[in-house]
Amino acid sequence: MIKVGIVGGTGYTGVELLRLLSAHPQVELSVISSRSEAGRRVDDLFPSLRGHCDMVFAAPQLDALADCDAVFYATPHNVAMQMVPELLETGTRIIDLSADFRLRDAELWSRWYGEPHACPELLAQAVYGLPEVNRDAIAGARLVACPGCYPTSVQLGFLPLLAADVVDLDSLVANAASGVSGAGRQARIDNLVSEASDNFKAYGVEGHRHLPEIEQGLSDIAGRAVQLTFVPHLIPMIRGIHATLYAKLLKQVDLQALFEEHFAGEPFVDVLPAGQLPQTRSVRGSNRCQMAVTVPQQRDTVVVTVVEDNLVKGASGQAVQAMNIMFDFDETAGLGGAALSP
Amino acid sequence: MIKVGIVGGTGYTGVELLRLLSAHPQVELSVISSRSEAGRRVDDLFPSLRGHCDMVFAAPQLDALADCDAVFYATPHNVAMQMVPELLETGTRIIDLSADFRLRDAELWSRWYGEPHACPELLAQAVYGLPEVNRDAIAGARLVACPGCYPTSVQLGFLPLLAADVVDLDSLVANAASGVSGAGRQARIDNLVSEASDNFKAYGVEGHRHLPEIEQGLSDIAGRAVQLTFVPHLIPMIRGIHATLYAKLLKQVDLQALFEEHFAGEPFVDVLPAGQLPQTRSVRGSNRCQMAVTVPQQRDTVVVTVVEDNLVKGASGQAVQAMNIMFDFDETAGLGGAALSP
Amino acid sequence: MIKVGIVGGTGYTGVELLRLLSAHPQVELSVISSRSEAGRRVDDLFPSLRGHCDMVFAAPQLDALADCDAVFYATPHNVAMQMVPELLETGTRIIDLSADFRLRDAELWSRWYGEPHACPELLAQAVYGLPEVNRDAIAGARLVACPGCYPTSVQLGFLPLLAADVVDLDSLVANAASGVSGAGRQARIDNLVSEASDNFKAYGVEGHRHLPEIEQGLSDIAGRAVQLTFVPHLIPMIRGIHATLYAKLLKQVDLQALFEEHFAGEPFVDVLPAGQLPQTRSVRGSNRCQMAVTVPQQRDTVVVTVVEDNLVKGASGQAVQAMNIMFDFDETAGLGGAALSP
Amino acid sequence: MIKVGIVGGTGYTGVELLRLLSAHPQVELSVISSRSEAGRRVDDLFPSLRGHCDMVFAAPQLDALADCDAVFYATPHNVAMQMVPELLETGTRIIDLSADFRLRDAELWSRWYGEPHACPELLAQAVYGLPEVNRDAIAGARLVACPGCYPTSVQLGFLPLLAADVVDLDSLVANAASGVSGAGRQARIDNLVSEASDNFKAYGVEGHRHLPEIEQGLSDIAGRAVQLTFVPHLIPMIRGIHATLYAKLLKQVDLQALFEEHFAGEPFVDVLPAGQLPQTRSVRGSNRCQMAVTVPQQRDTVVVTVVEDNLVKGASGQAVQAMNIMFDFDETAGLGGAALSP
Repeated sequence: MIKVGIVGGTGYTGVELLRLLSAHPQVELSVISSRSEAGRRVDDLFPSLRGHCDMVFAAPQLDALADCDAVFYATPHNVAMQMVPELLETGTRIIDLSADFRLRDAELWSRWYGEPHACPELLAQAVYGLPEVNRDAIAGARLVACPGCYPTSVQLGFLPLLAADVVDLDSLVANAASGVSGAGRQARIDNLVSEASDNFKAYGVEGHRHLPEIEQGLSDIAGRAVQLTFVPHLIPMIRGIHATLYAKLLKQVDLQALFEEHFAGEPFVDVLPAGQLPQTRSVRGSNRCQMAVTVPQQRDTVVVTVVEDNLVKGASGQAVQAMNIMFDFDETAGLGGAALSP
Repeated sequence: MIKVGIVGGTGYTGVELLRLLSAHPQVELSVISSRSEAGRRVDDLFPSLRGHCDMVFAAPQLDALADCDAVFYATPHNVAMQMVPELLETGTRIIDLSADFRLRDAELWSRWYGEPHACPELLAQAVYGLPEVNRDAIAGARLVACPGCYPTSVQLGFLPLLAADVVDLDSLVANAASGVSGAGRQARIDNLVSEASDNFKAYGVEGHRHLPEIEQGLSDIAGRAVQLTFVPHLIPMIRGIHATLYAKLLKQVDLQALFEEHFAGEPFVDVLPAGQLPQTRSVRGSNRCQMAVTVPQQRDTVVVTVVEDNLVKGASGQAVQAMNIMFDFDETAGLGGAALSP
Repeated sequence: MIKVGIVGGTGYTGVELLRLLSAHPQVELSVISSRSEAGRRVDDLFPSLRGHCDMVFAAPQLDALADCDAVFYATPHNVAMQMVPELLETGTRIIDLSADFRLRDAELWSRWYGEPHACPELLAQAVYGLPEVNRDAIAGARLVACPGCYPTSVQLGFLPLLAADVVDLDSLVANAASGVSGAGRQARIDNLVSEASDNFKAYGVEGHRHLPEIEQGLSDIAGRAVQLTFVPHLIPMIRGIHATLYAKLLKQVDLQALFEEHFAGEPFVDVLPAGQLPQTRSVRGSNRCQMAVTVPQQRDTVVVTVVEDNLVKGASGQAVQAMNIMFDFDETAGLGGAALSP
Repeated sequence: MIKVGIVGGTGYTGVELLRLLSAHPQVELSVISSRSEAGRRVDDLFPSLRGHCDMVFAAPQLDALADCDAVFYATPHNVAMQMVPELLETGTRIIDLSADFRLRDAELWSRWYGEPHACPELLAQAVYGLPEVNRDAIAGARLVACPGCYPTSVQLGFLPLLAADVVDLDSLVANAASGVSGAGRQARIDNLVSEASDNFKAYGVEGHRHLPEIEQGLSDIAGRAVQLTFVPHLIPMIRGIHATLYAKLLKQVDLQALFEEHFAGEPFVDVLPAGQLPQTRSVRGSNRCQMAVTVPQQRDTVVVTVVEDNLVKGASGQAVQAMNIMFDFDETAGLGGAALSP
C-alpha cells in the first residue's frame, strides 16, 4: 500500500486517475489538490465518483505532497516544472502527465511551448514513460514523463517496423484523430457540441506540439533521425484515438508475425488477428492499445492502424501502469477492466 | 426590396439569420454589427457563408441602423432594451429575438432576469411575434418580440386544446428537450462535447425563464390563468426542440380533426397524419413545426408531441416570418427550403 | 465460486453480462450459447473482450446449462419461456433478462406480446427482480424475472412517493428517454446512425410494452391500482435512461428527507443532494441509479428525475445484483466500478 | 422546364435529389420509382418532404421514364446497367449516381464488383461526371457516370498538384473519412448508433471499390499511371467527407496561388485563405467543396485537406450540377443554398 497524491485533479486526466486509483488495491489516495476548487468535495464536481471518492480538493501544499510515496501531476504544461524540483528533493517519486519533461532538449521544448524551461537540469533524469520501450528505466525512475496521447499510439504502431528496420525513415506519415476529451476540460467555443459534434476537421497541420515528442521517440527507437509528417484531426466523440500510419516497405517480411512477436507478453498491446481492424470503441475505458497491420493491394506501403483510449493508455492509465512498474506492483493492477462496449 | 440590419451577428441566431436573409428575394442586407468582431469579415468567422455573405462586422452605430427598414436584434437579453427606444424613434421597425420584450409585466421580467427593465413603457406596444396567434398585430407592429424557442413549441402544441377549451388548465405539463445550440455560442464547460454529448439531463427544473413567457401566452389563449409544469432537458445534438405535452381531457372530441382544422392554412405548422409521430430531424433547417396528437390507451390524458428547429421556427426563421408579415411579403418568402434529412 | 451460463450472448445485454461476470470474483463462466454464432470465438464478435473472455459460442444444450448453478437468459422475449420449465427441473436457478416472466397475469402478457404464454403455471413462482422492492424474495428465488430498463428507473423514482402515500395515483406521468442500445443489437433502419443520431423523437406513445409492467409494479407498491401515462423517447446516444416523473402532491412533506431515508442503505440508489440534478453520463457503465426530487416553483407538482445505465442497472448489472443476492454473495460483488466519465 | 425522373428514390441520395430538385426552378419532377415502396407516398417515407413533394412511388416502367428529358439512377450498383441500354435508345438522357459506368475498363469493373458488366459497350460513351475536369464532355453527354463520394474529394484535392506536375506520382496517400450516410439506408448492424456512433475506425484498407475509380481519374489528369494508397474511415456523424491528402513535392511552387488559380471561376470549389483549414460542417447540405493546402514544417510533403457533403457534392448535388450543364441551365441553379451551420 502506498500513499498517493494528485496535483490538478479537476481535468479529464484527473477524474480518470481518480476512477482508476480509487479501485487500485495497493493505493491509498492521500491528497488531491486544485487551486480553483480548494474546499469543494471531489464528488460534487464529478458526481460519477459519488461513493468512490470521499475527498475534498485542497490547495497544493508541499508537505502534504512530500508525505506521499508518489505524486501525479495532471496539470497543464508549465505547472509541474515549477513544483517538481522542490518535491523531488523530499524523495517523493513523480509521475507527470503533462508535457514538461517529455523532451530531452530544453531549447526544443522552449521553441514549441513558447517559454523557457524552468528546470532544464532535470530533463536528463526524467524517464520517458512508455513501458513498451522503457520498462526498465521506468522501474528505477524518480521522475517519469508520461507520453502524450498521440505519441503513445504513433510510437507503438511504428515500433515493430522501426525496431526491425524494414521501412524508409524519411517518408513516415501519421494521420491521427482524437476524441474531443483530448482538448481538456476547458471552456472553449471550438469544443462546444454545436461546433465540434457533427463535424470533422484537421488541425495543427503546420505543426503540433506532439510532433517533436514523436520524432524524438521514433529516432530513439530507430537509432537515427526520423522525419514524420503528422496530421491530427478532431473526431466528434469524447474518448479515443485512432492513428493510421503509413510507411514505405524496404523489405519483404511477414508483418503479422513481426507485430505479434514484438508485442508478445505486453499486457496492454494487442495485435489483432489478420483481417481485423481496430475500432476505438473496443478500448473505451480500458488501458489496451489494439492495432492491425496491412499492406493494401500487396503494394509497397504498409498501413498500421492503432487505437487507444486517449484518457487511459494515452494518459491516466499509462501513468498508473508506470506507477505499478515503479513500485514493483503487478503491472496490470487496477487496470484490468474490460472496455465499455457498446 | 428592403434594407435590413442585424445587431449582434456572431451567435447562432445571427448566423442563421444570415443564412436565411442572404437568400431572401426581397432583402438587402445593409449592416451587421458586433462589438467584439468589428472589422472582421463575416465569412472568416462563419466559413459556411463564404460566397453567400460579403460583409464585414461593424461596431453598432445608430445612423447605420436608422437607415434600415428593419433591424433584427440577435443579442443576449439586456442589449436590445438599451438601444431600442432611440432606434424606434427613427422609424426603423424592430424585430427582437431576445427576451427583452416578451413579457408584458415589467416586474415579472425583472424578477426572472434579475435586473430592472430599461424601457417598461415600450412593453405595451411590443407585439409578441407568434404568427399563429398574433398575425394581424404583427403586420402593424413597430416592435416585435420574437417568442423563445421552447415557448414556440409549447404554445403551438397546446393551442388547439386551449382554444377549444377541452382540457384542464391546472395540470398542464410540458416536458421539453432541446439541442445544445439553444445554449448559444458561448464558451461554457457545460456545453463541451466531452460534457454534453453522450449525455442527457434535465435542467432548470426549479424554474426556467421561459416559464413565465409560456404561461403568459397560454393564459392569453385560454382567456384565464393557466398553470404549467415545465421541465427542459438537454439533447446531445445541435439543433432541434421536442416538446411532449400532457393535459387532462375534459371532453370527448376528435382531436385529430381539431388539430388539423385549427392549423389549416398555416404555412409552417404541419399536423401529422394519425399514427405518425414527429422527429426533430424532419424539420432540421426548416421553419416548419410538425406535431402529433395522441390519447394513450384511450384514457383521459392527451399527449401532444411537437418538433421544431430551435434556430429556425424557434428563432431566426420565425423572425423572418414576422418580417415577411410586417412588410406584406409572401409569408413564406426565403423560408421555403425543405429540411436537411438525413 | 459458482458455475454460470449465459443463453443468448450476442446482444448488448449479453456482452455486458460478459464484461461484468468475467471480472466477478465468485463466478466461473461455464457456457455461453448462441444459435447463430455457435463455433465462433466470443472475442471475435466482441473485440472489447479480448484478453477477458476466452470462450466460444455453443449451441444451447440442456445438459451444459443444467450443469450450471445459475443461467442468465439474455434473449429476446419468447425464448426463455420455451426452455425454462425443463431447465428449472434440473435445479439450476434462472435469471431471465427478457420480458417472459415479468407479468403475473398470463392474459395481460399475451395481449401485449401477441402470443400465448408458454408456461403460465410458472408465473406465480417467478420473482420480480427489483432488489429495492423484493430483496428477500429474490434471495430465495429459483426463477427471477429481471425488470425492464424503463420500469427500473420509473419504479425506483416513484417508490418513496407511493410508499409514503403522498401523491395522487390517478395522474402519474412518466416521461422517459433511452439511448439507442435499448433497442438491441438488431439490423433495423430506424436505429442507423443516419436515422437515430442527431435526432430526438417519442415512440410507442399509444402503448409501450413496459407500461403494464410498470403499472403492475407501482400498484404492488401502492397497494391499489395505479394509472400511469408513460411516453418513451429515443436519445441520440448509446447508453443511458433518463426518467422525468410527475405527480400531484397530496401532502406537504420534506421530500428530500423522504427520498434519502427511503434509500438509505441501498448500495445502488443514490439520492443527490438538494439542488443537483442527475445526468446519464454520471452512471455510464455503473450499476448506480441517481435521482433528484424537486417541486418546481413550490407549487403542487413533484418532479423526480432519475438516471441509470440501461445496460447495467437497467439490465445486466441488475441481473448480477440479483445473482449476488440469490447466492448470498456481497450484493456489490463485481459491480463496484465507478462510472466512465467523461 | 424539363421533365425529370428518379429511379430508386428510397435511399439517401434519392431523398437528397428530391430535396434539391423539388426546389429547382427549371425542373418538373415527373416520376419517382421504387420497387419496394410502390404505391406509398414519398412524404410518408420522408416526412421532411411534406409540403415539398406530393408524389407517390411507382414501380419502374420504361414508358414513364422514356417520357422524361432526364432520368437519375439513385440505385445500388448493378441496377442501372440492366435498364440503361433500353432507356438510352428512347433519347432520354441519363445521370447515374451508382458505380455502374464509372470505370472505362469492363474487366476492372468486374474484378471489383464481383460480376460481369451488363453492357460493356456503353462504357466508352459514358462521361465521368466531374465538372471541374470534364465540363465540356458532360454538356454533350447522353449518359453521365457521377463520381463516387470519396473520389470527388480526393480527385479535386490532388487536381492542381497533378495538373501542374509538381508531386511524385508513386507515393500519393489519401486518408479519407466519411459520415455514416455514405453507407446508405440499409439495415446493417455495423451502422447502428450503438455500433458506429462514439467510435472511429478504418475500413476497406485492403482495397476499397473507390480505389480503381480514383486511380483512373488521377491517371487521366496526370497523363500517366498514378499509384495511390487509399484508406477510408468511418466518422460518427451523418454527413460529410474529409480527405487528407499527402504527396511528396518535387518542386518549390507557391501552392496557395496554384490552388486558387486552378479553381478560379469554379462555382463549387472554394480554396480557403492561407492559414484556415476546412471543416465538414461548413459545407453541410451545400454543394461546395472547401479545401486548404499546407506544407507542414516547410518540409517536402504537401498536405491537402478537403471537405464536401458526401450526399451533395459527393452525390446528388453533383448529379444536379451535371444536369444543369447538360441542359445548359445556370450551373448553380437549385444549388445555391448556404450550408446549414451549426
